[in-house]
Amino acid sequence: MKPVVALAGGVGAARFLDGLARVMGDPERLYVVGNTGDDAVIHGLHISPDLDTVMYMLGGVADPERGWGVRGDTFHCLEALGRLGAETWFQLGDRDLATHLRRTEGLRKGLTLAQVTAEITASLGVRPALVPMSNERVRTIVQTPAGELEFQRYFVARRARDRVLGVRFDGAKRAKPSPGVLDAVAEAEAIVVCPSNPFISIDPILAIPGVRRALRRRRDRVAAVSPIVGGHAIKGPAARMMKSQGIRPAAVEVARRYADFVGVFILDEVDRRQCAAVGQLGIRPAVTNTIMRGEPERIALARTVMGELGLTP
Amino acid sequence: MKPVVALAGGVGAARFLDGLARVMGDPERLYVVGNTGDDAVIHGLHISPDLDTVMYMLGGVADPERGWGVRGDTFHCLEALGRLGAETWFQLGDRDLATHLRRTEGLRKGLTLAQVTAEITASLGVRPALVPMSNERVRTIVQTPAGELEFQRYFVARRARDRVLGVRFDGAKRAKPSPGVLDAVAEAEAIVVCPSNPFISIDPILAIPGVRRALRRRRDRVAAVSPIVGGHAIKGPAARMMKSQGIRPAAVEVARRYADFVGVFILDEVDRRQCAAVGQLGIRPAVTNTIMRGEPERIALARTVMGELGLTP
Repeated sequence: MKPVVALAGGVGAARFLDGLARVMGDPERLYVVGNTGDDAVIHGLHISPDLDTVMYMLGGVADPERGWGVRGDTFHCLEALGRLGAETWFQLGDRDLATHLRRTEGLRKGLTLAQVTAEITASLGVRPALVPMSNERVRTIVQTPAGELEFQRYFVARRARDRVLGVRFDGAKRAKPSPGVLDAVAEAEAIVVCPSNPFISIDPILAIPGVRRALRRRRDRVAAVSPIVGGHAIKGPAARMMKSQGIRPAAVEVARRYADFVGVFILDEVDRRQCAAVGQLGIRPAVTNTIMRGEPERIALARTVMGELGLTP
Repeated sequence: MKPVVALAGGVGAARFLDGLARVMGDPERLYVVGNTGDDAVIHGLHISPDLDTVMYMLGGVADPERGWGVRGDTFHCLEALGRLGAETWFQLGDRDLATHLRRTEGLRKGLTLAQVTAEITASLGVRPALVPMSNERVRTIVQTPAGELEFQRYFVARRARDRVLGVRFDGAKRAKPSPGVLDAVAEAEAIVVCPSNPFISIDPILAIPGVRRALRRRRDRVAAVSPIVGGHAIKGPAARMMKSQGIRPAAVEVARRYADFVGVFILDEVDRRQCAAVGQLGIRPAVTNTIMRGEPERIALARTVMGELGLTP
């Protein structure tokens, strides 16, 4: 069975993928390429926030309120770390820590990030494949008036308050896509760009040599869901990042960034008037409700996307 | 002020040292040399069980029931590790984990074990100095009919049930005492061997080159508290280890092992009849209640030991 490939960031992607996995009769067919530009080493542990957000959601253990971490988790270790003088701006739950310990130990033993991720997702009972964009270290660096900031420092420690002048992906040029990623894109029945931040969730994946070119070859099978609705991001700093880089925060501007490799662009109903502008980019627009308040909306959005790509559940 | 040096293993030592620190007017004078032969790397973390037991007790956060770990700790991370397929025979509390994370990160950054221990104990408000016997890695290996076992595997995973044929200390010959240890012994006003297992808590310290010789030079200032009372160990496998090695499980046999460097040997009242045999070893015997059910007994025992060594509180 040909795979359905998804490019994914964190919370928005996880919610959308939850719907997609529920709608697909065969969730094993889903092949998720996860952003790892946000990865950080904290307290000596290798943390992959976007992979974790997706795997906790697909494993049914995600915290529904926060959007990150494990449901009902406690923070006793973090509190104790604080008493020992450690920085505690990065929230690490006690159950969540187990993932980071396993990952770090696996990497230290010589496994690749893809191998470790496969082991952890299997233990969590995640049925779709979750593959990091690369086994190599790629670091998203946010350029701000205060200087260059590692992503987690910008996003968590400084609460994404700095004005973003640009983003770069340290190590991306030397990195290779994880084994299987380019083949999956080439063979995919369809490819979905999840409703994730273009600059910090999707761009890092596109920055890995060969990925964007592979997507361009499949342009007519690629759909993207807009992360911008009514000029705002559903979650996170995407709209502010657009403004601070001189880009109008509008769905069509996301479509413009993806125009070389996306054939279908899904906008929210409130942005219906941007359909013509999307069409002028040579992209077929499709309109639906993209705001996923709960499971019914996730499932409805997934059905629409599958319909637009001619996929049968 | 001249130091009072203590050689310490785990739970028995921690309880005794708690009494000693309470009785001494100036607990900063107490200089504890801790066994690290039990150290293990578990889930990629450097764990020093004996140092932790002593520091949690002296920092006032020890669990009074279990004897190890942090009071009221939870085990959510360990449970999650189990779900991820990790071995979970080594009990790691969530708050306890913070200590191991800090230690591991400090060591990886190039700090010595002594430096990391000093940082952690300072954060916990521990007033005595706690110094690992060596900054080098020394591994206690227990020889059993089932083969050689790393200490924690023998002690925790297999519950100390194997017959012990012998114990060796891998790496001890190449190790050096931590900086300051030999000077502290040479300058000490008095030295106490805590009521710890001779084979697996005190012998590793004595195996570090130079330590036993330094103690011999101060023999008239060294007191040991018997860990064997009425033919049994208060806690742990000491008595069984004696039997399986063909040694009678009696306080006097512990005294015999220490005879070259101990001048005063403190026996429990139930072992009063062994005083003559201890005296025949050229060691001055002293009798008191050595069973520390609670704080009053710890304090009374500490007062007796200080009195026998002519120390003023």
